[in-house]
Amino acid sequence: MYLDLYENSNFKRGASRIKEVFWLLSGDMFLAGSLPGSFWRVGLLRLFGAKIGVGVVIKPKLRVKFPWRLNIGNYCWLGESVWIDNLAEVNLGDHICISQGAYFCTGSHDWGKQSFDLIVKPINVASHSWIGAMSRVGPGVTIGEGTVLTFGSVATRALAPWSICSGNPAIEIKKRSMVKR
Amino acid sequence: MYLDLYENSNFKRGASRIKEVFWLLSGDMFLAGSLPGSFWRVGLLRLFGAKIGVGVVIKPKLRVKFPWRLNIGNYCWLGESVWIDNLAEVNLGDHICISQGAYFCTGSHDWGKQSFDLIVKPINVASHSWIGAMSRVGPGVTIGEGTVLTFGSVATRALAPWSICSGNPAIEIKKRSMVKR
Amino acid sequence: MYLDLYENSNFKRGASRIKEVFWLLSGDMFLAGSLPGSFWRVGLLRLFGAKIGVGVVIKPKLRVKFPWRLNIGNYCWLGESVWIDNLAEVNLGDHICISQGAYFCTGSHDWGKQSFDLIVKPINVASHSWIGAMSRVGPGVTIGEGTVLTFGSVATRALAPWSICSGNPAIEIKKRSMVKR
Repeated sequence: MYLDLYENSNFKRGASRIKEVFWLLSGDMFLAGSLPGSFWRVGLLRLFGAKIGVGVVIKPKLRVKFPWRLNIGNYCWLGESVWIDNLAEVNLGDHICISQGAYFCTGSHDWGKQSFDLIVKPINVASHSWIGAMSRVGPGVTIGEGTVLTFGSVATRALAPWSICSGNPAIEIKKRSMVKR
Repeated sequence: MYLDLYENSNFKRGASRIKEVFWLLSGDMFLAGSLPGSFWRVGLLRLFGAKIGVGVVIKPKLRVKFPWRLNIGNYCWLGESVWIDNLAEVNLGDHICISQGAYFCTGSHDWGKQSFDLIVKPINVASHSWIGAMSRVGPGVTIGEGTVLTFGSVATRALAPWSICSGNPAIEIKKRSMVKR
Repeated sequence: MYLDLYENSNFKRGASRIKEVFWLLSGDMFLAGSLPGSFWRVGLLRLFGAKIGVGVVIKPKLRVKFPWRLNIGNYCWLGESVWIDNLAEVNLGDHICISQGAYFCTGSHDWGKQSFDLIVKPINVASHSWIGAMSRVGPGVTIGEGTVLTFGSVATRALAPWSICSGNPAIEIKKRSMVKR
């Protein structure tokens, strides 16, 4: 590839420049800061366009690229130092635990083209899933309902529902069974 | 799981609320800060209850959850940006090198229960071990004497003594032999 | 190993103590800071001895150990939160993309010796390569021209030119073909 030929003219940032500057400052100083507190983090993200349900707990040091492309259902947790790098939408269902240090990547490039075109793809995580500490979720990945991506694993493609997935790349190592409510 | 049913009532934090608040501030501002200096970091951790031997070197940007659950022997090194997330005890023997960016995780959840019960398990690292840069050590893991967890590897279960362990999950790839002292 | 016997007397830091102190401050406060802007980051690195070509884009939160051991060609990108831990030289060709969170490690130790001798080895990345987000590149690794190290992968040995390499440790999973310019 030749990076002077780089092509991303189709990419829409989804917010005005001024909004983005305010978000850069707010995100960096507050959301990604060490100050404890969840409710004001939820409020700050909503102020910049995130859709967030009830009962959501957000720990310190969260990094979010574009809050206006973040949708979180009810009763989700986002652990310390989670990084949601959402050039495209990141959609979380209900009752999802994202553990500390997890990273969501929505951007890629067309490595077959000299212009190294930007490719962005959303990430969808279905309800009752657990994204383990220090794990990574790649562009376009869909995580099925009730699935566990274990500690330090790297999800590069769709993970089946109610499975325990592990490794780099993450593969299903067993089924998850859960005592009924 | 249903996170509104979350169950962690058996978990004891091991310190008063006021001590924890002071630790949050001190840990974040000083221990995890960029200011060089090892001896004062050792002193700060001891002040909050860590047991630390002689000859211990601590680099900047160390994150420790609960210093009162950290035990370090003699002549250990903790590299830059190490994160010891010790809800349970992390116990290090003597002459251990923890390289930069390594992460210790002691917390997990019972994924078979709707209440997603908190599970915490200690990490034990025996003497003469080397935990490589950017590696991860999971809850309950015991690392045998003289073992090397290589660069970027993820330890999810016990590692045998005097072995070189690698990958995600880390497995023994060869034995370690060492010239006698 | 016995860390009180540690041996690194052959290691040359390549700069005066005063230069290093100034770099520690500048690197930490500015290069690794959140302030946007690429051109002044390039300038700062050059001021401390880095050789950097034209058309280079550097994103915030870059960590560089020794700028005087960093060589970057033309039209390279360094993403957010990249960490170049270059005790030895890190040499990048032209048109290289280093994505966010990538880590370059040039230091190791002789684990067969009681004195745990420091070993440093350069990293060489040939032109038109892409080092994916959150990937890791180990000491002495040579990355061939046009090679892609995928998201979250760990390169521990040489990667062949024009290959797509993946996993931990990273291995070639296919060849890369590119439409001619």
